[in-house]
Amino acid sequence: MLHFDCDYMEGAHPEVMRRLLATNLEQTPGYGCDPYTAHARELIRQACDAPQAEVHFLVGGTQTNATVIDGLLRRHEGVLAAESGHINVHEAGAIEAAGHKVLTLPSHDGKVHACDVERYLEEFYGDETWPHMVAPGMLYVSHPTEFGTLYSLEEMEALHEVCQQHAIPLYLDGARLSYALASESNTLTLHDVARLCDVFYIGGTKTGALFGEAVVVTRSELLPHFFTLIKQHGALLAKGRLLGLQFETLFTDDLYLRIARQAVTTALKLKEALLAKGYRLFIDSPTNQQFFVLPNSDIDRLSSHATFELWGPRGETESVVRFVTSWATQESHIDALIGHL
Amino acid sequence: MLHFDCDYMEGAHPEVMRRLLATNLEQTPGYGCDPYTAHARELIRQACDAPQAEVHFLVGGTQTNATVIDGLLRRHEGVLAAESGHINVHEAGAIEAAGHKVLTLPSHDGKVHACDVERYLEEFYGDETWPHMVAPGMLYVSHPTEFGTLYSLEEMEALHEVCQQHAIPLYLDGARLSYALASESNTLTLHDVARLCDVFYIGGTKTGALFGEAVVVTRSELLPHFFTLIKQHGALLAKGRLLGLQFETLFTDDLYLRIARQAVTTALKLKEALLAKGYRLFIDSPTNQQFFVLPNSDIDRLSSHATFELWGPRGETESVVRFVTSWATQESHIDALIGHL
Amino acid sequence: MLHFDCDYMEGAHPEVMRRLLATNLEQTPGYGCDPYTAHARELIRQACDAPQAEVHFLVGGTQTNATVIDGLLRRHEGVLAAESGHINVHEAGAIEAAGHKVLTLPSHDGKVHACDVERYLEEFYGDETWPHMVAPGMLYVSHPTEFGTLYSLEEMEALHEVCQQHAIPLYLDGARLSYALASESNTLTLHDVARLCDVFYIGGTKTGALFGEAVVVTRSELLPHFFTLIKQHGALLAKGRLLGLQFETLFTDDLYLRIARQAVTTALKLKEALLAKGYRLFIDSPTNQQFFVLPNSDIDRLSSHATFELWGPRGETESVVRFVTSWATQESHIDALIGHL
Amino acid sequence: MLHFDCDYMEGAHPEVMRRLLATNLEQTPGYGCDPYTAHARELIRQACDAPQAEVHFLVGGTQTNATVIDGLLRRHEGVLAAESGHINVHEAGAIEAAGHKVLTLPSHDGKVHACDVERYLEEFYGDETWPHMVAPGMLYVSHPTEFGTLYSLEEMEALHEVCQQHAIPLYLDGARLSYALASESNTLTLHDVARLCDVFYIGGTKTGALFGEAVVVTRSELLPHFFTLIKQHGALLAKGRLLGLQFETLFTDDLYLRIARQAVTTALKLKEALLAKGYRLFIDSPTNQQFFVLPNSDIDRLSSHATFELWGPRGETESVVRFVTSWATQESHIDALIGHL
Repeated sequence: MLHFDCDYMEGAHPEVMRRLLATNLEQTPGYGCDPYTAHARELIRQACDAPQAEVHFLVGGTQTNATVIDGLLRRHEGVLAAESGHINVHEAGAIEAAGHKVLTLPSHDGKVHACDVERYLEEFYGDETWPHMVAPGMLYVSHPTEFGTLYSLEEMEALHEVCQQHAIPLYLDGARLSYALASESNTLTLHDVARLCDVFYIGGTKTGALFGEAVVVTRSELLPHFFTLIKQHGALLAKGRLLGLQFETLFTDDLYLRIARQAVTTALKLKEALLAKGYRLFIDSPTNQQFFVLPNSDIDRLSSHATFELWGPRGETESVVRFVTSWATQESHIDALIGHL
Repeated sequence: MLHFDCDYMEGAHPEVMRRLLATNLEQTPGYGCDPYTAHARELIRQACDAPQAEVHFLVGGTQTNATVIDGLLRRHEGVLAAESGHINVHEAGAIEAAGHKVLTLPSHDGKVHACDVERYLEEFYGDETWPHMVAPGMLYVSHPTEFGTLYSLEEMEALHEVCQQHAIPLYLDGARLSYALASESNTLTLHDVARLCDVFYIGGTKTGALFGEAVVVTRSELLPHFFTLIKQHGALLAKGRLLGLQFETLFTDDLYLRIARQAVTTALKLKEALLAKGYRLFIDSPTNQQFFVLPNSDIDRLSSHATFELWGPRGETESVVRFVTSWATQESHIDALIGHL
Repeated sequence: MLHFDCDYMEGAHPEVMRRLLATNLEQTPGYGCDPYTAHARELIRQACDAPQAEVHFLVGGTQTNATVIDGLLRRHEGVLAAESGHINVHEAGAIEAAGHKVLTLPSHDGKVHACDVERYLEEFYGDETWPHMVAPGMLYVSHPTEFGTLYSLEEMEALHEVCQQHAIPLYLDGARLSYALASESNTLTLHDVARLCDVFYIGGTKTGALFGEAVVVTRSELLPHFFTLIKQHGALLAKGRLLGLQFETLFTDDLYLRIARQAVTTALKLKEALLAKGYRLFIDSPTNQQFFVLPNSDIDRLSSHATFELWGPRGETESVVRFVTSWATQESHIDALIGHL
Repeated sequence: MLHFDCDYMEGAHPEVMRRLLATNLEQTPGYGCDPYTAHARELIRQACDAPQAEVHFLVGGTQTNATVIDGLLRRHEGVLAAESGHINVHEAGAIEAAGHKVLTLPSHDGKVHACDVERYLEEFYGDETWPHMVAPGMLYVSHPTEFGTLYSLEEMEALHEVCQQHAIPLYLDGARLSYALASESNTLTLHDVARLCDVFYIGGTKTGALFGEAVVVTRSELLPHFFTLIKQHGALLAKGRLLGLQFETLFTDDLYLRIARQAVTTALKLKEALLAKGYRLFIDSPTNQQFFVLPNSDIDRLSSHATFELWGPRGETESVVRFVTSWATQESHIDALIGHL
């Protein structure tokens, strides 16, 4: 059986495991006050070209989003996001559980357009009743988006500018950031991300770590007392060095990017094969997630050879499916899948 | 200057004031444990033909919505509502502040269609990832809606049915319920509302009371310990009898309905006059709120004689405005306004 | 039957009712944007000798505490309060419902000692694990306290100083502030309160108003966007002028203080009589609440003539009871009660 | 340098690491829907002799407490706990952040006495104003406590009984449960815990796992939709099998208990040595945490050879310190530390 359900079906990259094993019996202080974490922070600052940035390590994506957003917003504020944004759809209301509304913007293949942000803010403050409404207090974007699509450098510059003008922080969810950086279509470097975003995170869970997300705060005055907030959100790992060690490994010798390329290459090979077979793209993604519309009969047949996700409810005759590759996907897996098409 | 901004610009109906004055120096226990409140509860149960219903009195609409919804939902659940619903737009995130997501449905002139509820629930549970999403735990509707429109008996029966089938409570926001009941277009009696809704409230603030909303709970097992929740939400009035007294007065000799009719009659007179002048309806409302599209020049001219609300941001050449009448509006006010058109 | 349960058993002072009636049919904008509210604000600023203060009007005490505290604290902070503080005991968890912990200090007859605040802060930051704990972000005191006791000017100066030194706001719950100001034992003027506290409220519900609390913010930078927070907490009264009107009346011709004196005078008369009969003080209060230890047999006998509150659970042979007078209590009521002792 | 700061300074037990490595490249579904997790659940049910129990795996202790307590309580309820309870002191307000008050009981060396629970409940419902207060909705205890002390079987039976009588769930925080089970002083088996508690968790982080806590729900009707709540609390691990695998390993061949014994044995050896040197116990603990009062001079001297925690703020001449051993502590470490006394 082949598996393309998601990019967290395996454990960690072997090099990460090697480091965890090699240091396993060492004793270090907890909660990220260890030398591995300190070094990982430094490596990430270097990779981002952001020497002043603060770096925090959390365990998973939903908790990272909930903690950062809770830290950035005041009580009367909400977070702007695409209607398709992960925080609006697939986080079980974690943002609202912390008291904040998700204010939705149109999704353009998963992306937010700067003009929509602009329009929202203008209409909001143009309405005399705005003090009765939830103030848009920050912008959330994901890169790649939930549909695998990418912001161009120009698009992100525009988002940065509109946020600057209205003095709201820009936060980027980088759960799959590696797969953006590894895509040939990408025009947004890690330096750009650090330059344009006030806070963002670099996902580890989906790229070679057992778990872990690195939050980079380029304007640290926005998140004072963030350590306590991480604790309050239940997001503080006792053995914090496990996070440090993993990110230290991923940011040594460019491992993070190298292993991401494998995922993108195999995903694009699959995409070409599906297109060649005449299947229809649901969304045109240049990263490790591929969305296609397939006849239900083909889906059923393929399901005896491979697992993958039905995207949304099953349609009457055809449905949207998602194939995801990861750093661990081999070309042979793709060839085998193609053989079954 | 004439005022049509909203239906809470005056104090209370004179009869309400008379009763407040007459009983002013009496001493009664606080928090609604007084005979006036007990009597008001009984009168409301009779008016609703719901002898088993529990009745609670709160001060204002937003706090009522927030308290009831917080009581009805479990932590993992959210509330379904029209995108235009008051809880989604004009309550400063009170629902989210209590931890719950507002799950939006299309607004059909402010109304929710049963088929949209059905579709939402089917798609939700048809999506394998539903345990990662906020469960739709109840339905919120307003009657009249925020646009003054009305549900027909059939429409409400359909909403009741879909909620029953999926075992989610149906809650009706009746901030302006009187103006629905007083409209000739209305087909939904108070008995029907009580029969079809699990919880609803009868608005006092906008119909003759200084303040106050009467929450009717027809399935009291849904809101155990509601008194404590009212207190926790800061919605428990110390001098609870003020609420009891006002509703006792409103539900004696049909005062509630009688004074509402005046508002609807005057609103419809204004509507006809505006249509006769050739102005365009923004939404066709049979109740005390009238929404029209007016050229900005006419708006500016009219503004020197009357106040009314700009609905949303001002357009380039024309804008939407809202005229609201109340139980205190006189025909002479309408005639004067018409004279300025 | 005589009633000494609490100080909110009557309606409003007749002069307040007269003003409400006189203005009843006037039309004003909602939400506190009316001239009466503006004037009331000005009168309160004058009474406080705080020309720069912001004044907001809310409906009740619990909602005022919850809204102010929620506004003053950041998410990782809690509020210091005496163990006996109203927010810790009798607000149904409203503070926690908004996400904040109440950090308790010893209660000295209801009062907080500055040295206890100092010790708490020193021990807190002296403990290396403090970032894992809720940071003390403000101090809550009530004046008079829940036991009717009063802070001296020196005590409040000391609290002010410790708060200043540690840069945490000092908030004073003045639900019964009038009865402090009217007490001969009081050394803390309204000017002092405004000078020493960052935020406080002047209670109307218990002193002559139907309802209403006036929040005075002497350092307005501490509560930005407070209007929206009031709305979010369901604490924004649609007919805001009702609050303005009542406070305008209370702060005209010193009505607020004058009527409070009546309550204190009658309470002290009762106190003397109880002491003369040999009953034991539970706590020595110079204001309108009197706490005595009475044999259960006497309590039972008295209960057929008067209502009053059992303070805490009933003891085996004797229990604590509370007698409360109000602005509406007549000397004849006290004489009658004394006659039954 | 020797380290006795806490029991999470190392990675995982070598056998746990071996299993993680052996299965690293396998592909499994996420979120705990894998065969390792299923098997771990079964092993835990067997070890607890609780064939009907539901078992959930979360990442850390604070998040486990916050999620379980949030699931067990309704909005108007709080959680009873010893004043010294971890949830009251060291979780940065995570319980309050989810809206619930921690209702404190006296701490008897970290333990809650059943009679105090009984008294609290009786006084609570004996007070007529209870509907204005936070209802005690569950009881939280930790075993061992934060001071390393243990409940006897009789004490836990008594707690169980009082909770049963008042129909509130009993929840046991077992962050260090292994070190209780491994103590010769312990009279409470895992079967007893499962029989007497409605929910409890078996800590992995502090006993051989990299991270992870196993929540055992013996009355599953108390936590419906718990999966979604875990997700909402950011506590759902994407690669859920990592939790399953670790607990499967720990509950195979009694590893969990075997490695805990090592910690207790070494801790008790240290305790005897400290007592022999004449140092004073702060609290008498039979488990892996030892609390002693040491002269500051001795603390300073010892600090050049070993790390350990100052418990609370430093005193003037002497202070309380805590020494913690773990499954990884060797006798040689203890001998070396003793040599430095």
